[in-house]
Amino acid sequence: MPELLNRLEWRYATKKMDPSKDVAQEKVERILEAVRLTASSSGLQPYEVIVVTNPAVREQIKPHAWNQGQISDCSHLLVFAAWDNYTAERINGMFDLVNEQRGLKNEGWEAYRQQLLASYPARDAQTNFEHAARQAYIGLGSALIAAAYEEVDSTPMEGFDPAKVDEVLKLRERGLRSVVMLPLGYRAGEGDWLVALKKVRRPRAQFVTEVA
Amino acid sequence: MPELLNRLEWRYATKKMDPSKDVAQEKVERILEAVRLTASSSGLQPYEVIVVTNPAVREQIKPHAWNQGQISDCSHLLVFAAWDNYTAERINGMFDLVNEQRGLKNEGWEAYRQQLLASYPARDAQTNFEHAARQAYIGLGSALIAAAYEEVDSTPMEGFDPAKVDEVLKLRERGLRSVVMLPLGYRAGEGDWLVALKKVRRPRAQFVTEVA
Repeated sequence: MPELLNRLEWRYATKKMDPSKDVAQEKVERILEAVRLTASSSGLQPYEVIVVTNPAVREQIKPHAWNQGQISDCSHLLVFAAWDNYTAERINGMFDLVNEQRGLKNEGWEAYRQQLLASYPARDAQTNFEHAARQAYIGLGSALIAAAYEEVDSTPMEGFDPAKVDEVLKLRERGLRSVVMLPLGYRAGEGDWLVALKKVRRPRAQFVTEVA
Repeated sequence: MPELLNRLEWRYATKKMDPSKDVAQEKVERILEAVRLTASSSGLQPYEVIVVTNPAVREQIKPHAWNQGQISDCSHLLVFAAWDNYTAERINGMFDLVNEQRGLKNEGWEAYRQQLLASYPARDAQTNFEHAARQAYIGLGSALIAAAYEEVDSTPMEGFDPAKVDEVLKLRERGLRSVVMLPLGYRAGEGDWLVALKKVRRPRAQFVTEVA
């Protein structure tokens, strides 16, 4: 665990990546696996991850993200895209998969399915999307640690026009909406104004309250 | 890293915790540190973590969370509480802390401060809260891995009445709103319907798309 914390100290939102260094595919796979394995509300995993390596597509995305250089300098651009809504089909899809994989039907689990079917699809799409987006952020939290663990640099990015990115990646047609991006690559060092600066966090006393 | 993935395979949303086993404080500290160190939008860390060990307070929270047993059976109940809004004071507080810790003023950083001051406080509180809540979920993602790494069980919980929990913990007075809870403890094994069941996730092909 000290190792885990050391890696979290090491990571930072890389401002300049070295375009000549590619992240090995096996590392990318382990980072994606850490996202796939983490928790989500009711286990629905209401998001997908788009891995953009195609340079032309990244060039199309770049102007919609303040022309941030990491988008073209990274080797893998992860786009976290949340479900635009919870539908009965999507909920049933996950519950059916669970039953199939476990080879059994559980009464409590089926009652829970009915509870979700009775509540989620009836809510407005925006509420459901916001809920799904939060789950994608759990995935992002997982990816950040996993990347640091692999000594891979990354830059969480919210600064982009989601509607435009959705267009480039044709996400709306798939019922998805981009919520956050994470370029993976290696710090260039030179030309990165942030690399040498101290990581600053609020001290524990201003971040944690104990009710003992 | 295989270790990290193994721990993620090991973790599950524990349904029954053993009330006789307490998580060692040093483990809790490392889990909290993993939350404190992770990324947040513009580094604002727009949330706090409330650690509830007091049994009476946990009993007050329980009825507002479907009487889920982990709330009293865990040894530490983490409540992630997001800022209810972005204010100039909060934004300046973080930027000032960064300058103080780094011992320098950076022109680009100051321009960025002005950009945030010109945009965030003018947005409606709900939009800002939703944005802050997403950041808390990055923290949750970090806590989930860190707990698993410590072989500590946990149960991410959204199933509670946030307004009621805010009341019990007097969060609104501090400009905070509860968004998700995470009891920390040890699986009881017996009495946990989920412990022996296979962890199910969508296969990679249904979770990851490559644009190569």
